[in-house]
Amino acid sequence: MNSVSIPQNVNLHQAGEQIRLEVDGRLLWCHSPLQPAVFAGYGEADIEMQRGNFRIRDYVQERVALRHARLDAQAGLIELRAWAEGPLLLTLRLDCQGERVRLLMQAPQPGCNRLWLRLPAEADEQVWGCGEQMSYLNLRGRNFPLWTSEPGVGRDKSTWLTLQADNEANAGGDYYHTNYPQPTFMSSRRYCAHLVTCAYADFDFRQGDFHELQVWAIPEALEFFVGDSYIDLVGALSRYFGRQPRLPEWVLDGAILGLKNGREHAEQHLKTALEEGAKVSALWCEDWEGLRITSFGKRLFWDWQWNAERYPDHQAWVGSLHERGLRFLGYVNPYLCNDGPLFAEAQAAGYLATTAEGATYLVDFGEFLCGVVDFTLPAAAQWFETRIIGQEMLDKGLSGWMADFGEYLPIDVKLAGGADPMLEHNAWPVRWAEVNARAIAAAGRTGDALFFMRAGYSGVQAHCPLLWAGDQSVDFSRHDGLQTVICGALSSGLLGNAYHHSDIGGYTSLYGNCRTAELFQRWAEMAAFTPVMRTHEGNRPDQNLQFWQDPATLAHFARMTRLFAGMKPYVESLMDEAQASGLPLQRPLFLHHEQDTGCYGVQDQYLYGRDLLVAPVHAEGKTHWSVYLPAGETWQHWWSSERFEGGQRVEVAAPLGQPPVFSRVGSRWQALFESLTVL
Amino acid sequence: MNSVSIPQNVNLHQAGEQIRLEVDGRLLWCHSPLQPAVFAGYGEADIEMQRGNFRIRDYVQERVALRHARLDAQAGLIELRAWAEGPLLLTLRLDCQGERVRLLMQAPQPGCNRLWLRLPAEADEQVWGCGEQMSYLNLRGRNFPLWTSEPGVGRDKSTWLTLQADNEANAGGDYYHTNYPQPTFMSSRRYCAHLVTCAYADFDFRQGDFHELQVWAIPEALEFFVGDSYIDLVGALSRYFGRQPRLPEWVLDGAILGLKNGREHAEQHLKTALEEGAKVSALWCEDWEGLRITSFGKRLFWDWQWNAERYPDHQAWVGSLHERGLRFLGYVNPYLCNDGPLFAEAQAAGYLATTAEGATYLVDFGEFLCGVVDFTLPAAAQWFETRIIGQEMLDKGLSGWMADFGEYLPIDVKLAGGADPMLEHNAWPVRWAEVNARAIAAAGRTGDALFFMRAGYSGVQAHCPLLWAGDQSVDFSRHDGLQTVICGALSSGLLGNAYHHSDIGGYTSLYGNCRTAELFQRWAEMAAFTPVMRTHEGNRPDQNLQFWQDPATLAHFARMTRLFAGMKPYVESLMDEAQASGLPLQRPLFLHHEQDTGCYGVQDQYLYGRDLLVAPVHAEGKTHWSVYLPAGETWQHWWSSERFEGGQRVEVAAPLGQPPVFSRVGSRWQALFESLTVL
Repeated sequence: MNSVSIPQNVNLHQAGEQIRLEVDGRLLWCHSPLQPAVFAGYGEADIEMQRGNFRIRDYVQERVALRHARLDAQAGLIELRAWAEGPLLLTLRLDCQGERVRLLMQAPQPGCNRLWLRLPAEADEQVWGCGEQMSYLNLRGRNFPLWTSEPGVGRDKSTWLTLQADNEANAGGDYYHTNYPQPTFMSSRRYCAHLVTCAYADFDFRQGDFHELQVWAIPEALEFFVGDSYIDLVGALSRYFGRQPRLPEWVLDGAILGLKNGREHAEQHLKTALEEGAKVSALWCEDWEGLRITSFGKRLFWDWQWNAERYPDHQAWVGSLHERGLRFLGYVNPYLCNDGPLFAEAQAAGYLATTAEGATYLVDFGEFLCGVVDFTLPAAAQWFETRIIGQEMLDKGLSGWMADFGEYLPIDVKLAGGADPMLEHNAWPVRWAEVNARAIAAAGRTGDALFFMRAGYSGVQAHCPLLWAGDQSVDFSRHDGLQTVICGALSSGLLGNAYHHSDIGGYTSLYGNCRTAELFQRWAEMAAFTPVMRTHEGNRPDQNLQFWQDPATLAHFARMTRLFAGMKPYVESLMDEAQASGLPLQRPLFLHHEQDTGCYGVQDQYLYGRDLLVAPVHAEGKTHWSVYLPAGETWQHWWSSERFEGGQRVEVAAPLGQPPVFSRVGSRWQALFESLTVL
Repeated sequence: MNSVSIPQNVNLHQAGEQIRLEVDGRLLWCHSPLQPAVFAGYGEADIEMQRGNFRIRDYVQERVALRHARLDAQAGLIELRAWAEGPLLLTLRLDCQGERVRLLMQAPQPGCNRLWLRLPAEADEQVWGCGEQMSYLNLRGRNFPLWTSEPGVGRDKSTWLTLQADNEANAGGDYYHTNYPQPTFMSSRRYCAHLVTCAYADFDFRQGDFHELQVWAIPEALEFFVGDSYIDLVGALSRYFGRQPRLPEWVLDGAILGLKNGREHAEQHLKTALEEGAKVSALWCEDWEGLRITSFGKRLFWDWQWNAERYPDHQAWVGSLHERGLRFLGYVNPYLCNDGPLFAEAQAAGYLATTAEGATYLVDFGEFLCGVVDFTLPAAAQWFETRIIGQEMLDKGLSGWMADFGEYLPIDVKLAGGADPMLEHNAWPVRWAEVNARAIAAAGRTGDALFFMRAGYSGVQAHCPLLWAGDQSVDFSRHDGLQTVICGALSSGLLGNAYHHSDIGGYTSLYGNCRTAELFQRWAEMAAFTPVMRTHEGNRPDQNLQFWQDPATLAHFARMTRLFAGMKPYVESLMDEAQASGLPLQRPLFLHHEQDTGCYGVQDQYLYGRDLLVAPVHAEGKTHWSVYLPAGETWQHWWSSERFEGGQRVEVAAPLGQPPVFSRVGSRWQALFESLTVL
């Protein structure tokens, strides 16, 4: 064994029967025969997929404690066996790379397809992350399967809405279902852990004295980052996973209006908005490529070319929008419907994934079938980038789009290079983000053209400039309504996703659940305090309130867009911070207030930069709202200018149009903030 | 090692790497290093109890294949280790006792609290049993946790009724929840397997080539019974677990009327029934001890003594009932409410189970609290037998009772002899049955006084003369309605429970689910073809139809009681069979038609004895019903006298009052049956 260079702050040593890895005095890994750190085994998965909803079961045949460990401290090597004379089952090799401390893993024996890795935990420790989590910011006390999927409709097994969705299509979801999982967490013990793998994983934070990370493969490594503060840790993760480009400046000039019923409809409601005094930066017409009608509602025609019937003379029209200072955004996803011409083109070129038997694999998306462009094939990815995104979208006037999906790669698909779809499934959102980012870069439009995604996985940070929180139900529900957007922004933000936004008013309207004016307004007043303010007509536009249909809602919305646009200087400063340090724009309170224990349980409020505290009203019929204010600062209520000392919970009036927002007294932006209270 | 005497038909031998146990040519147990028969491990259970509903989770820390086996064929001994030089983890010792072939188990090492035992299976094999199963007769393709509990309200996670019950009190249940589990199954390979244990178990029949029996303790033994026919196997199980006494003759003379609103109410509705020409054998007044009102509905006052207000002059009254040829039945359960005098008496004598700290353990039964009589204490059991059942019940005129509950023993109770409540929980129904049976025996009333139970476990057969199917919902639902009663009778019958019946019209009315006249009548016409016909007012009598409230229902019911009473000679012959051979009165079709594959999937019909086939209508609004008729016989439709060759599915008219029943042509009871078609 060779000895390796181990930095001063890293200490891997044996103490009695214990093997301990300590970094900067933090115990990160610990093994003893009675408390083994690794269990290895064999499981048989049983997975059913139904339109992006997965039912995943595992039959664990064996789970063996690797009790017997041998440390070669010089070589930074740990050898793990089930018993002293048994075969070598796992080696962990210490590898320190800059701020990362890695344990590289190898399993010399075949036949092991499950690992359970235990990390020492403390009873009062909190952990956050695991991608974009919509239900719980603090992950302690629960387990989190990590598998990109539909997040579910309702996401709460106690509700009738969820049950109906489950009964119809296994689509109800649960608290951990997310478009964007990631096997990475941050601990209140001021470290982060990351598992280098795309395999199905399940991070279990239910035990008092350990975390247990289950993974269905031998991961490349378990990595640790240690920092003096959470801010340090966010920065380290952002450096590692990749930092987003700045959002385009034009995004901050006003709302992006989601309109999807052709050119006249778009012009009409743009006019309504502008006449009301709304600030508008762009039209987002996801129907640019045409529609199809299904029982779920209006769906898009998944062949990514302008639809001349709905958008006649589109290039001239987009030109006229540009002249009015407006961008045009569209929609795309990685599938091609088999009744469109691009499908035929891709199929002929051999760019579509196949079944085991070699036929083109068709995914049922709900009354229509699609091919899967095989992004493991460089030529196929490049074709999507140049032929579709380049020629059909950027060249033809689009300044951005929703880059939808990424979560649906079937696990029985055959990929060109022979990659295992059980591993590619989680990798797919990142491949999809790369296709979008490369296409924009090739056109020289990085930082100008924008795309936004809901799907993600480790590394999506480097490619996707903007997350959107997916398809919330059009309600205030605990696990699928307005408030889940906050949790999604905060959890993903800690992992280095600086920019986050959501569909104003939510998206999914099913089983009679429809958007109210109150919901729309509460959502809009939250969105004004995020970097992107965008409406969506939803899956059933005809049955759900739109911004132009109710005078009070329209006036409220227009006012909020003015507030949003007025925030531009401040938000630009936050974008500078994001560029420099990887800090997200929306931040958990504890990020800037580590010592204030009162901040830790709060997941329905956020700091918008250091200087604003936003506590969106996320319940019906409220006229007042209770807000926790972090200690050590004085906070000024946005609307009343009343000042409160931090470290307490206060109640403020919160009628529609007055979202509970507080500015930090002493902020250099105080004058700007105060100028925005009357608009 | 001593050699043991191994009968000719038992063959335990090594063949290459395989160790095989064959009995009468059937492979019953098989081990090889690549397909190990035993996995051992350690788990941490997490159990929550809420009024008899249990949420049981297990965190399996280790599950190790015992790959290394050593056979001493002479001694009938198998030693199992995880690896060749590893510690001896389990021994299996062959022990042949009459028709039983046993593998006695011992685990020399401490620390193992989970075993998974695999038995060879065949792809098309069917298995039945596991106690009284309400949802599935053939257990293949599912797993069955075996833990006595409330069966649940709705028992179907896809229904709104179940979800409401789950949300309110974790009371929705699932397909496997049952008052009476038993770690015993019968296989279509003509053998039975039984695990000698009271520990929590989970029998998993989902795999193609093995069954896997999980158990949370080292069981005393795994036992096998091999037979030439299913009838042989039922007989063997009945001999082993114990044979019930004959039902009292009086039970066959008419219906038992369930009335629970005091003496006048009982007399009034008895009169109504008799005037309509109903045959009545007894009144069952479960409110004999008084009532209490809770939000669930009218509940009983759990202090087991006559209530003189509701039943004034009760002994004279019971005497007058006897003069009219009627018995009086009551109600009892193993708990004592803490606001009644018997509680104080038991507490003073030290007969109540305690908390770990020594205080009297109080169980919340829904707005009232009860002590648990500690049946592990012989003096406490005897006190219940003599002081309560003897003096308060038998001596004071009761000829029988519902012996309710048995499923609720809390797992954190402290028992007098130090027994582990995790083991006693499943044993409790049998202890409770013994208390009842011994009290009746002590009074010399065996075969005359009757009690009926819903709870059970291995061995309840020896003590409990009659099962009742528990608390069905008042509906036709698949997993909690009328049809579940059939499955319960058939599954428990195969394990040697000859007598089964149910509440006519169901019991549980919650969340607006109420009994219809149609349901009551369909249930009554099924009950006429069971050994006991008994009504129940249900948990909410005021909101649910009673037999006297609707002229058509009353007439139908009276007619069915006449039919029932007319069946007495035939049913007596079935009771003779039960006495002689352990055969249940209600039998799966395949019990008499092993060669007819068409019989195997049928769980909503039964043979009532060999000569009647009963196919209860268990859906709403039916005028016709499809019935499978076993091959090799000719079957005569009860109502039309039309004859059909067996081996086919036929459709017959099935209006209310004409339950689909067929007699076997050639039966010696043909004349009796035909005489009963006009009543």
